[in-house]
Amino acid sequence: MAPLYVALLHFPVYDKNRQIVTTAVTNMDIPDIARVARTYGVRRFYVVTPVQALRELAARILAHWASGWGASYNETRKDALALVGLSEDLDHTITDVERDAGAPPLLLVTSAQTTHPTISYAQLRLMVADGDRPLLVLFGTGWGLSEEIIQRADHLLPAILGTGDYNHLSVRAAAAIILDRMCGRREELQEAYS
Amino acid sequence: MAPLYVALLHFPVYDKNRQIVTTAVTNMDIPDIARVARTYGVRRFYVVTPVQALRELAARILAHWASGWGASYNETRKDALALVGLSEDLDHTITDVERDAGAPPLLLVTSAQTTHPTISYAQLRLMVADGDRPLLVLFGTGWGLSEEIIQRADHLLPAILGTGDYNHLSVRAAAAIILDRMCGRREELQEAYS
Repeated sequence: MAPLYVALLHFPVYDKNRQIVTTAVTNMDIPDIARVARTYGVRRFYVVTPVQALRELAARILAHWASGWGASYNETRKDALALVGLSEDLDHTITDVERDAGAPPLLLVTSAQTTHPTISYAQLRLMVADGDRPLLVLFGTGWGLSEEIIQRADHLLPAILGTGDYNHLSVRAAAAIILDRMCGRREELQEAYS
Repeated sequence: MAPLYVALLHFPVYDKNRQIVTTAVTNMDIPDIARVARTYGVRRFYVVTPVQALRELAARILAHWASGWGASYNETRKDALALVGLSEDLDHTITDVERDAGAPPLLLVTSAQTTHPTISYAQLRLMVADGDRPLLVLFGTGWGLSEEIIQRADHLLPAILGTGDYNHLSVRAAAAIILDRMCGRREELQEAYS
């Protein structure tokens, strides 16, 4: 399996008026996406924010669940949160992945607005199953990743489309669906989609 | 498309020591699963709790987003939360589905512990795409649905398995993945899994 990494960017992302903002780190995203990452064999899940105070707060919360009372109260949360890394921006995140995996990662970007994806989930499954190039999947908070980040991507993943026009999943739900499509156990999926 | 319904049960579910408990209604589950439900054409998403005070609290929060400031601030949340119904137990939920759909629903149960599923996602996709019998998918909070509920199910869905042993997704992530597997747009999935 290719070394797989996930990053959740809190900057630079859009707000509802398409202004570039920094979003708050929330206590919902981290354990949820960490459990998904742990389920699908992700090596590290980066929470990326330029705000040092929020990285420090997140580090304190992670420490609570990593040792002492929190760790014994909820062991599956501890196992998931052990994957979480805190990072100040995308460049530092890429450097950290390269240090861990020994090669720079391919940047994969997801967006509900993607109309011309450059890769299919079938191709992604092959890259994950048979490749050795590290993969870094970027998710944006707020109203999505800024154009500047999207331009840096090696690949745009297909948007997750439902049965109608509504495409406003939470980033937690989108991350769950995309990692399941990329990495969900193959025999399960063959059965599921044959 | 078969009339599709989702219910999130806060009772009877297990706690970490496998005692039957009533869990709290949280402000994380409702909008997240509502957005997933809206994406995949679900007709109604039931939040099920026997605690009247929690149903009243949830109703107040829903009203905030349904009208006035909340509705204009976040329209996509409003559209998703419009699907939410509050219900006191499974029997009332089933009655409500029957009233809406004109026939009693097939009960579909999901559990991370399912080792012998009675239906595949491929079969489920057919039931959704071509069937007319209403389907009600049950999700449990806490450490999962009680055996009593599981026994009532017409079908047990396959557990969501990742790349290893870890199967401790949040109910929000599990709901997103399962609805995507059941209803995700077919041409997307053919491309994705061909």
